[in-house]
Amino acid sequence: MSSDRIVFIGAGGAGITTAFTLARKRPDMKITLFSKDPIVAYSQCGMPFVLDRKIESFDKLVLYTPEVFKDLGLDVRTGTAVTGIDLEAKTVTIEGGEALEYGKLVISTGSVPFVPPVPGVGLMGVYRLLTLEDGKRLAEAMDNVESVAIIGGGPIGLETAPAFLDRFIDVTIIERMPQLMPGALDPDMTKMLEDHLKDKGAVVITGKGVDSINGKDRVESVSVGGETIKADMVLLAAGVKPNVELAKKAGIDIGPAGGIDVDEHFRVKKNGKVLDDVYAAGDCVEEVNAITGRKVVCAIGTVANRQSGYLANELMGMGVPYGPVLCPAITVVGDLQIGSVGLTTRACEAAGIKPISFKAKSNTRARYYPEGGQLDIKLIADGRRVIGAQIIGKEGVHGRINVLTLAIHKKMTPAELADVETCYAPPVSPMIDPITYTAEMLALRCKKYKK
Amino acid sequence: MSSDRIVFIGAGGAGITTAFTLARKRPDMKITLFSKDPIVAYSQCGMPFVLDRKIESFDKLVLYTPEVFKDLGLDVRTGTAVTGIDLEAKTVTIEGGEALEYGKLVISTGSVPFVPPVPGVGLMGVYRLLTLEDGKRLAEAMDNVESVAIIGGGPIGLETAPAFLDRFIDVTIIERMPQLMPGALDPDMTKMLEDHLKDKGAVVITGKGVDSINGKDRVESVSVGGETIKADMVLLAAGVKPNVELAKKAGIDIGPAGGIDVDEHFRVKKNGKVLDDVYAAGDCVEEVNAITGRKVVCAIGTVANRQSGYLANELMGMGVPYGPVLCPAITVVGDLQIGSVGLTTRACEAAGIKPISFKAKSNTRARYYPEGGQLDIKLIADGRRVIGAQIIGKEGVHGRINVLTLAIHKKMTPAELADVETCYAPPVSPMIDPITYTAEMLALRCKKYKK
Repeated sequence: MSSDRIVFIGAGGAGITTAFTLARKRPDMKITLFSKDPIVAYSQCGMPFVLDRKIESFDKLVLYTPEVFKDLGLDVRTGTAVTGIDLEAKTVTIEGGEALEYGKLVISTGSVPFVPPVPGVGLMGVYRLLTLEDGKRLAEAMDNVESVAIIGGGPIGLETAPAFLDRFIDVTIIERMPQLMPGALDPDMTKMLEDHLKDKGAVVITGKGVDSINGKDRVESVSVGGETIKADMVLLAAGVKPNVELAKKAGIDIGPAGGIDVDEHFRVKKNGKVLDDVYAAGDCVEEVNAITGRKVVCAIGTVANRQSGYLANELMGMGVPYGPVLCPAITVVGDLQIGSVGLTTRACEAAGIKPISFKAKSNTRARYYPEGGQLDIKLIADGRRVIGAQIIGKEGVHGRINVLTLAIHKKMTPAELADVETCYAPPVSPMIDPITYTAEMLALRCKKYKK
Repeated sequence: MSSDRIVFIGAGGAGITTAFTLARKRPDMKITLFSKDPIVAYSQCGMPFVLDRKIESFDKLVLYTPEVFKDLGLDVRTGTAVTGIDLEAKTVTIEGGEALEYGKLVISTGSVPFVPPVPGVGLMGVYRLLTLEDGKRLAEAMDNVESVAIIGGGPIGLETAPAFLDRFIDVTIIERMPQLMPGALDPDMTKMLEDHLKDKGAVVITGKGVDSINGKDRVESVSVGGETIKADMVLLAAGVKPNVELAKKAGIDIGPAGGIDVDEHFRVKKNGKVLDDVYAAGDCVEEVNAITGRKVVCAIGTVANRQSGYLANELMGMGVPYGPVLCPAITVVGDLQIGSVGLTTRACEAAGIKPISFKAKSNTRARYYPEGGQLDIKLIADGRRVIGAQIIGKEGVHGRINVLTLAIHKKMTPAELADVETCYAPPVSPMIDPITYTAEMLALRCKKYKK
């Protein structure tokens, strides 16, 4: 008789959330989770804010303790790496050699940091920030350095920068692309973000990669475009890539974006053929972009969380197809919120779409109401409908990105978006919402370009 | 030859905004605005926050000065009441007897406060808050009283309450209906609001009207359900009603909700017949509720502002039909934000709709992130689609009401709403948005009731 156990490889956002949902709704199911990490079920997204001392300790980020797993009847094996998958025998092999039979397998191996292939990445003093252990190590080391080079101008690096700046550590941010946050923002939208970081004392270098990390045993400096920059510490934050090694080794198909190729029921494929009992979800899989129809990897917690709902239903025999996504995201860098959804101008061009955009500045409150701030907003259309949005400001970003996500999801035109009713009170918004105004101007621009 | 002048009666939100748009886009147009008020083009919505000393002076609320009118070629006659409309002669009569011919007429007479028909409303010390003059008078008087009775538990009264409380003035709020904000909230949603006011020291009396305002020359007390409450001052804030006297006198049709009955091009009617050259907009007109299809009056600035865009296009010969509305609104009472859109449970019942609802509590940030707050959210469905939403909290209300406005406008079901992607960062939201969670639970409840 074959096993009726559901085995998860990886207990990050996708794995643990799916397992929890199953355990609560179907206590009869036998579930085992393997995790290389000694601690699971914590918020990765909270780590920059512990480092920045907004949250008092890493322990606060732990959402569930081992006792909760036991109460739910979940067999969670932390600190235990899976070393192989045998799709024929329907087993996973654990380090040490033990094999465990599965009825259904879920590959939720998450992502691994992208490590730039430069000399010196192995030196002492080079850190990353992916696991809770990484966070704790970094926190300890931060108190003993005077300078840091952050390699990568994406969300994780930038969210962590204030933690260094607040400790009076010299910060140099190095981004290979010609701008910060190239995945989320257009070049013309990064000014407020760059200014904010520079105002706080950071040095921002864009358009140049790190050539080497230098030092004897420990990091002493980094070389960037011929220049040597002093750095007692390096934070590698050059993005992540899907952790697909195990899947690849087992012969499971990897898609064009480098993630595991799953169907709309999260089933993996082998030589293009869907496997009935092996699923994958979270940062390690590809999904379909709702605008371009192309495969993408979207390694953010909300996507993993949403997938978990679908996957849990699937494993309970109530699956519905998982559709294309927009991947809205918000990043908080010090006092600044940076939100985005849909395509950037660069992504439009890569997809062969000719973007028409409009950018505006607005107050976040009625213009006579004090303590508000400025909001930069850019909307992008393909000439007919809205397909991208970027917003930066000290408040009022989160809700507007969610409005725009729904609008893009509903395939609204700029004119339709400009016509949507909005609520208003002087302490929380201007009378005419920045979205309304920007959409109205974008509608006019689209009309003009159509002629 | 008939006049080619566009005449506006009333220069509140609808009148002045329409006139400004016309003046900017069509400088050839001859435009005259009449206003009883000595000052026009100011933000009414900002007044409670000047009284509360959040905004430094009433002058800050004035958006445009008479110089701007002149520069734009607008003939704005402040302090000048129109006393009559002659639809046959196409003239308006001004106080004093002068008549002015119009080519097109816009009735934008706004609203007047509802004055409860009780003895003593004419006493000294009874104030209201509709015009800037009202605001200035109230501000002056506030510094010399020890107690105030606010008659009416709606937005204006409640937004003004903190101004009294912060001056250590005893505040009694009296609402005839059994709850605060009956137009926007269900009874079970008012707790956080009542607690907030009570924590700040206010006495809240609901379910009882004021029987009389007492005093010799000046207010000394109010009588409520047999009880006498000391009050050196009374603020009448029992709501507003459409200011339709002039229109009515001219024989223009008034609709079932008490506002001027306009068609979807803002043209008024006489004996059911649409008039081609007389328009009305703003607080004085009725519109169509997008859910019930019934006529309603929605006296808020955003609605007047949105109408202005439509009306300006209409007057420039580029009119498009104005559709039904949802009237989303947000009220700020001290630190608390109260948002609503669509139908309340009471409004559902009045419209013959059987509401199914779900109410939830959520954090406004990740649960481990400090300084967040609690958010109360209630969603209402008609069994199939979402038709109402109410949210109260210290942050995160504005954007969510706008999301829900769009969702209701798009006739989304609770399950569809629960499936919409959202953005997340620990300092600005929980991982699972309160809307997502509440919509998911509402979908389950709707499913259960269907069985």
